Amino acid sequence: MIIENVAIIGVGLIGGSFALALKENYLAKNIIGVDTNDKNIEKALELGLINESLSLEDAVKKSSLIFLAIPVDATVTIIKKLMGLITPEHIVADAGSTKLAMCKVLEDHPLRKRFVATHPMWGTEHSGPEAAVSGAFKGKACVICDKENSDPDAVETMEFIYKKIGMHLVYMNAQAHDLHAAYVSHISHITSFALANTVLEKEREDDAIFELASGGFESTVRLAKSNAAMWVPIFKQNKENVLDVLNEHIMQLKKFKSCLEKDNFEYLQELIEDANKIQRIIK
Amino acid sequence: MIIENVAIIGVGLIGGSFALALKENYLAKNIIGVDTNDKNIEKALELGLINESLSLEDAVKKSSLIFLAIPVDATVTIIKKLMGLITPEHIVADAGSTKLAMCKVLEDHPLRKRFVATHPMWGTEHSGPEAAVSGAFKGKACVICDKENSDPDAVETMEFIYKKIGMHLVYMNAQAHDLHAAYVSHISHITSFALANTVLEKEREDDAIFELASGGFESTVRLAKSNAAMWVPIFKQNKENVLDVLNEHIMQLKKFKSCLEKDNFEYLQELIEDANKIQRIIK
Repeated sequence: MIIENVAIIGVGLIGGSFALALKENYLAKNIIGVDTNDKNIEKALELGLINESLSLEDAVKKSSLIFLAIPVDATVTIIKKLMGLITPEHIVADAGSTKLAMCKVLEDHPLRKRFVATHPMWGTEHSGPEAAVSGAFKGKACVICDKENSDPDAVETMEFIYKKIGMHLVYMNAQAHDLHAAYVSHISHITSFALANTVLEKEREDDAIFELASGGFESTVRLAKSNAAMWVPIFKQNKENVLDVLNEHIMQLKKFKSCLEKDNFEYLQELIEDANKIQRIIK
Repeated sequence: MIIENVAIIGVGLIGGSFALALKENYLAKNIIGVDTNDKNIEKALELGLINESLSLEDAVKKSSLIFLAIPVDATVTIIKKLMGLITPEHIVADAGSTKLAMCKVLEDHPLRKRFVATHPMWGTEHSGPEAAVSGAFKGKACVICDKENSDPDAVETMEFIYKKIGMHLVYMNAQAHDLHAAYVSHISHITSFALANTVLEKEREDDAIFELASGGFESTVRLAKSNAAMWVPIFKQNKENVLDVLNEHIMQLKKFKSCLEKDNFEYLQELIEDANKIQRIIK
């Protein structure tokens, strides 16, 4: 299967990397970039991520697959307009990190079944078309949500593409997705942002951090470079789940604090040994 | 300079990697392992990390440089016995992640000047001789503390070795070291342990974590695999500094919590943009 024309809305880190993956796996002939940011379009053309740039209307007319890779608040805003432009032959998929808000917005749309809610779980702390990388999604999970609300041919096309670019598929409903995403992705970003702010607040001597920061610090604080325009809408849409996990995380940190304050090093040892059990899951 | 005999107390991750670095850089002819754990000695011999194994007494007699790479509570316990065995020709150095407790214990020792307090800032979440790797310390910082309390020849020898194995040297007093280490290393471990416990507590469906955990989660939780026997004594010795940073970190997390609870997404954006400033420091 090779698709003549694919439109990618948002040619940043994810859109750009997806474009590369389509080309590298001979899945698309012509990639049309749509982006409100002219500089992104210019850069994406220059880097060869996209073949041409069109307006949303013209891109929809020309393509059969439309892939959304913009912040989740923008996706929810643009999707209704987009769904008004498509025919029952189009397939629309998105790559957003939250799925429930999107699925709710489309709930009663007459063409809902042409939309496939997906979350290819890959990303880096960088953003923009310059951040796009080749081979990006390989070996990672892609979640497909509420499969039964999409037409089988649309789901099959997206399954084919994601498998071809090296992803394994996981199925769940949008609500379960947002809950799990809070645990395995969103909370990591909050702890990393907060850790960066802690160190920047307390450690006035930048030179000392720079000189001493070891691999451990770098890996826990790496995500703190992530883009606010992408993450604020994610936290907003997934507020309840994120708050729930964040409350638990603060409680866990308070256990460490209490051990130190009370010189309870036996319990501290237990807490660390409990944490070590993550080895079962993360090799 | 090539040292005939070096004794390494503790042939685990750090001791084993240091042994490899000495050999690879032609800094030592014969490496003597000392370890209370027979299995570690066996493994270290089998892996070729050490050439022979001796008792502490015999190892001191035979060697001119003694390098301590055991948990920081064990170091503080063993150091007085060790200092009673050495002559004014020996050099003793340690690799511990805390420095103040060690320096205080030796404060009034007649041979204090033969001891060099060092912290080569490298490590992984793994432990034991099997975890030792070649080229481990390259490009990392090594802190030398309270240099003026050691004999110049002893300091020069350690400087020569650390530079030769690829480290750059940073000088500060033991108190400043422990403070900075709390910011750039110890707090990262606490957040990672607590994050692992958060997720293990909340996410009962192990399969979901396993399937979905992306690079971001893995990097923030990687340190949670670290060894309790190594980390409890570090947190114990550096309690005041760690508590100070931990309190600040909990406060920073509460800011995120409050933004979400109050739907204050403008301030959330600000917090994330503040965190992004870590890019200045961590490339």
